[in-house]
Amino acid sequence: MEVGFIGLGQMGIGMAGNLLKAGHDLRVYNRTPEKAKPLEADGAQLAATPAQAADGADVVITMVADDDALESIVLGETGLLAGQGKGTIHISASTISVALSQRLTEAHAAAGQTFVSAPVFGRPDAAATARLAIVAAGPADAVALCKPLFEAMGQRLFVIGTEPQTANLVKLSGNFLIASVIESLGEAIALVGKAGVDRHDYVELLTSTLFGAPVYKTYGGLIAERKFEPAGFAAKLGLKDIRLALAAGEAMKVPLPVASLLRDRLLALLADGGQDLDWAAVSTLAARDSGQAS
Amino acid sequence: MEVGFIGLGQMGIGMAGNLLKAGHDLRVYNRTPEKAKPLEADGAQLAATPAQAADGADVVITMVADDDALESIVLGETGLLAGQGKGTIHISASTISVALSQRLTEAHAAAGQTFVSAPVFGRPDAAATARLAIVAAGPADAVALCKPLFEAMGQRLFVIGTEPQTANLVKLSGNFLIASVIESLGEAIALVGKAGVDRHDYVELLTSTLFGAPVYKTYGGLIAERKFEPAGFAAKLGLKDIRLALAAGEAMKVPLPVASLLRDRLLALLADGGQDLDWAAVSTLAARDSGQAS
Amino acid sequence: MEVGFIGLGQMGIGMAGNLLKAGHDLRVYNRTPEKAKPLEADGAQLAATPAQAADGADVVITMVADDDALESIVLGETGLLAGQGKGTIHISASTISVALSQRLTEAHAAAGQTFVSAPVFGRPDAAATARLAIVAAGPADAVALCKPLFEAMGQRLFVIGTEPQTANLVKLSGNFLIASVIESLGEAIALVGKAGVDRHDYVELLTSTLFGAPVYKTYGGLIAERKFEPAGFAAKLGLKDIRLALAAGEAMKVPLPVASLLRDRLLALLADGGQDLDWAAVSTLAARDSGQAS
Amino acid sequence: MEVGFIGLGQMGIGMAGNLLKAGHDLRVYNRTPEKAKPLEADGAQLAATPAQAADGADVVITMVADDDALESIVLGETGLLAGQGKGTIHISASTISVALSQRLTEAHAAAGQTFVSAPVFGRPDAAATARLAIVAAGPADAVALCKPLFEAMGQRLFVIGTEPQTANLVKLSGNFLIASVIESLGEAIALVGKAGVDRHDYVELLTSTLFGAPVYKTYGGLIAERKFEPAGFAAKLGLKDIRLALAAGEAMKVPLPVASLLRDRLLALLADGGQDLDWAAVSTLAARDSGQAS
Repeated sequence: MEVGFIGLGQMGIGMAGNLLKAGHDLRVYNRTPEKAKPLEADGAQLAATPAQAADGADVVITMVADDDALESIVLGETGLLAGQGKGTIHISASTISVALSQRLTEAHAAAGQTFVSAPVFGRPDAAATARLAIVAAGPADAVALCKPLFEAMGQRLFVIGTEPQTANLVKLSGNFLIASVIESLGEAIALVGKAGVDRHDYVELLTSTLFGAPVYKTYGGLIAERKFEPAGFAAKLGLKDIRLALAAGEAMKVPLPVASLLRDRLLALLADGGQDLDWAAVSTLAARDSGQAS
Repeated sequence: MEVGFIGLGQMGIGMAGNLLKAGHDLRVYNRTPEKAKPLEADGAQLAATPAQAADGADVVITMVADDDALESIVLGETGLLAGQGKGTIHISASTISVALSQRLTEAHAAAGQTFVSAPVFGRPDAAATARLAIVAAGPADAVALCKPLFEAMGQRLFVIGTEPQTANLVKLSGNFLIASVIESLGEAIALVGKAGVDRHDYVELLTSTLFGAPVYKTYGGLIAERKFEPAGFAAKLGLKDIRLALAAGEAMKVPLPVASLLRDRLLALLADGGQDLDWAAVSTLAARDSGQAS
Repeated sequence: MEVGFIGLGQMGIGMAGNLLKAGHDLRVYNRTPEKAKPLEADGAQLAATPAQAADGADVVITMVADDDALESIVLGETGLLAGQGKGTIHISASTISVALSQRLTEAHAAAGQTFVSAPVFGRPDAAATARLAIVAAGPADAVALCKPLFEAMGQRLFVIGTEPQTANLVKLSGNFLIASVIESLGEAIALVGKAGVDRHDYVELLTSTLFGAPVYKTYGGLIAERKFEPAGFAAKLGLKDIRLALAAGEAMKVPLPVASLLRDRLLALLADGGQDLDWAAVSTLAARDSGQAS
Repeated sequence: MEVGFIGLGQMGIGMAGNLLKAGHDLRVYNRTPEKAKPLEADGAQLAATPAQAADGADVVITMVADDDALESIVLGETGLLAGQGKGTIHISASTISVALSQRLTEAHAAAGQTFVSAPVFGRPDAAATARLAIVAAGPADAVALCKPLFEAMGQRLFVIGTEPQTANLVKLSGNFLIASVIESLGEAIALVGKAGVDRHDYVELLTSTLFGAPVYKTYGGLIAERKFEPAGFAAKLGLKDIRLALAAGEAMKVPLPVASLLRDRLLALLADGGQDLDWAAVSTLAARDSGQAS
């Protein structure tokens, strides 16, 4: 397939590489073009603007940091809206707000293009090895057409509906659930830790029984180790996603008390200078509040 | 080994049966003696009082409903303190308070006996099939001596320390973590559900990715199904355990904001008449607060 | 003084009337011009646009519903920025976001004009009788110049600093404090009410002792009476202000756990259809959660 | 009247003194008898035990620190139950649990005596100058009989019902409301303070408008001043009262989210070594969480 790919960060570089391996023709764009070098060596063409990456492409995939970045890539002067042909598809894999997803759905439709949301679950190593889980939502025929691309980038595909923004909401809710695991583990470990139970033993116990899931293993390990640098996912990004989940809840009138607590915890972490720590560092606040030096 | 077993409820009946199968001599006591019939048929002797179940036993195991029940069984006129010989061991498998665990540790020590705490993780079917996880704490030699009994009743043994009450604290913290999964899943499902995402699809997505643990499968299933009767674990018992976790936290000066939220949720559920529903019904409150009929 | 006045709602009509009484020359603008009739009868001139109300005025006062309204009045084609002369002052009395206050400060400065924030405390009857409390912030000389106008509209003036947005923050914090009184009174009344204490007696007791302030009298009365219509201040506006307080807190990294709780309560009230009730109706949620029909 | 008075702490000494001034015959008891000297000089008799203070008294008043103290004074070997005559009255002015109030009501009734609960609002200076507010509950004739005593000790009497424990509940709810003012003021001041608003100006503004009540003046002053020693009411006592309010709520199935938050805040303060600070020091936690050194 003729594919444009925009955003070659830690996640995007692996995803684009897997599309190349699967035999697709790729035009890539990144704000700092140096990052595209390894892909060029493997046969990708380098585009100078988003519009140029979209030129001739059936599908353009974007994987960028936040709402602002995606907005300028789509709506900017040399953006996708202007650059994509009629009948083409834009797959947004970024974690963005429900509100922006709705706006882009409308904007692309007005331009005779189709918007598909397909945020991903997984860290950079899963992106590099095509083991992402992809949550897609959009018009059924468009999603079907994109299937070979999803299969090249991930190992599991969940088609969650026909309205793109529901996929964004599911992604945000997933990050909310991760953060709630961090907070509750932090409280539990503050409790048993103050009684003298070894943190590593405790996490080992949990993850060999009822709580034997990747989320408890990954974050339980980080919390027991108190190792928050380098960040797998920075606290400031975590705050952004919790804020987007709360905003979606507010728009639909869904109170989310645990998310509210998480927002306050993340703010306290940032107020203390922790914006660049892994968001698992939220667990240090329960320890601190119980009088345990973290 | 000569073993006394007290408390033949849904959990105890399976645990005692597995001790018999493993070849131990069993004296069993239950407040309502009819429940002991099947065990008698398999060779257990029926005792008329806790003290009689303890008579001649190396180890007595108790598995009862709450602090009050255990207190009367140990400290009552025909209780274990009076009935156990010097040098014998009392293994408490019940979910009890940290405070009672400390009191019983002292009381048994004063009587020349040893107290071991060994609460279990698992539902009645795991008790029946010897697949419990057992968290034990107590003097090292006593725990070592009890090992064959633990192996007959469970598939995993975690020795967490030498002070019995730490095992009770770990058990309470585990129930707190389960409840926090219920609450956060309830909020997440209220959010995506109100946007039209199918609850079963959503739980399937979660449990096939980062959240692939028994706790998400069991409770995610109950919440998606909105099936809260019959209760696997009743809301009123859930409230009791959260209260005990909070009390332990208070005694050690460990604030637990998520546990505080859970306490308020469980109280609201009970105020609404839900004391006998499965505690997964806490999830209906997030749905209700978002204007979704539950 | 030559004064423009924009926004003749329940509050603005009284404030403008008091400026006329004090002898100032008034040009008034309102989206629906009928509301200006009584002021015209008293000598005010009716303007067709905000810019026209600003024409020739030394000071323009705005009192409108929200950020959106103020933005269009200031930045719109026939707005204040275009209509005010150099060296003139814009006093914003509306409850708006800190962020908009900062933007308008910059925009007016760039146009050679001065922005002063002066939100007010008080209900429509206080506006009509010049008993408002006014919290002003802005450049000292501008505030000094406006003093006669403040004195015509209110009975207390608090000059809180030289940066306009601090006055908006103080106003938002005040509304947060009112809402926190509503919530805590709601909980206290749910508690003593369920024990059979008469709600009116209880509020009488509180307000004759430690809690003898207007906020407890007004809201305690509404809660005891369960009278939430017509709304003195609608729940949807309350939610807006709590959201703005949270947003200000987020921008400055100040966690506000009680405000988070209030946000969730107000959302639950709105999800239940209560957007047009007085925000004191938040108190019904504590009653409902305790199983008391509200 | 013949009156026994037990408990000559900061509050009791003033209350007893006012009874003497009003002409009543007083027998006083205190664990450390030295404290009774000034009252002896004014005509009170010193009793060696609670029972002796009750000997010949129509009414015995107790004003002690907590449940444990009152329990031993009433139910101990030389306690009131044994020492009071049939038909006499015990007025408990202490802040105690609803549960103990119920137990004492029953115990006194079984002994042919009457229990009246009459906790007080006010600090030591109000006790000394007879400006307390007294909240009484008990059988109507008993309360009527005690009226001259209430009038000697306080300036306002609120008879809240015939079941003594409702007065205790009202007292606990009042302390909950005070604590909620501390927390919300702490958050508001963290917010405006971080924006540079002067704390004293802010409190002055609040208390001259909507929030002009003693509770805002007293606690707003302490928080603005950051003066938490010596404690007017120590954090550890505050935690005790919030715990009793939560326990009463739990017994009646009334969730109290703000009280839950206060409990966690007070625990964090105690974990940090603040048990003997005034409970207004809870406000430092909001400041700390926002990155402001307290």
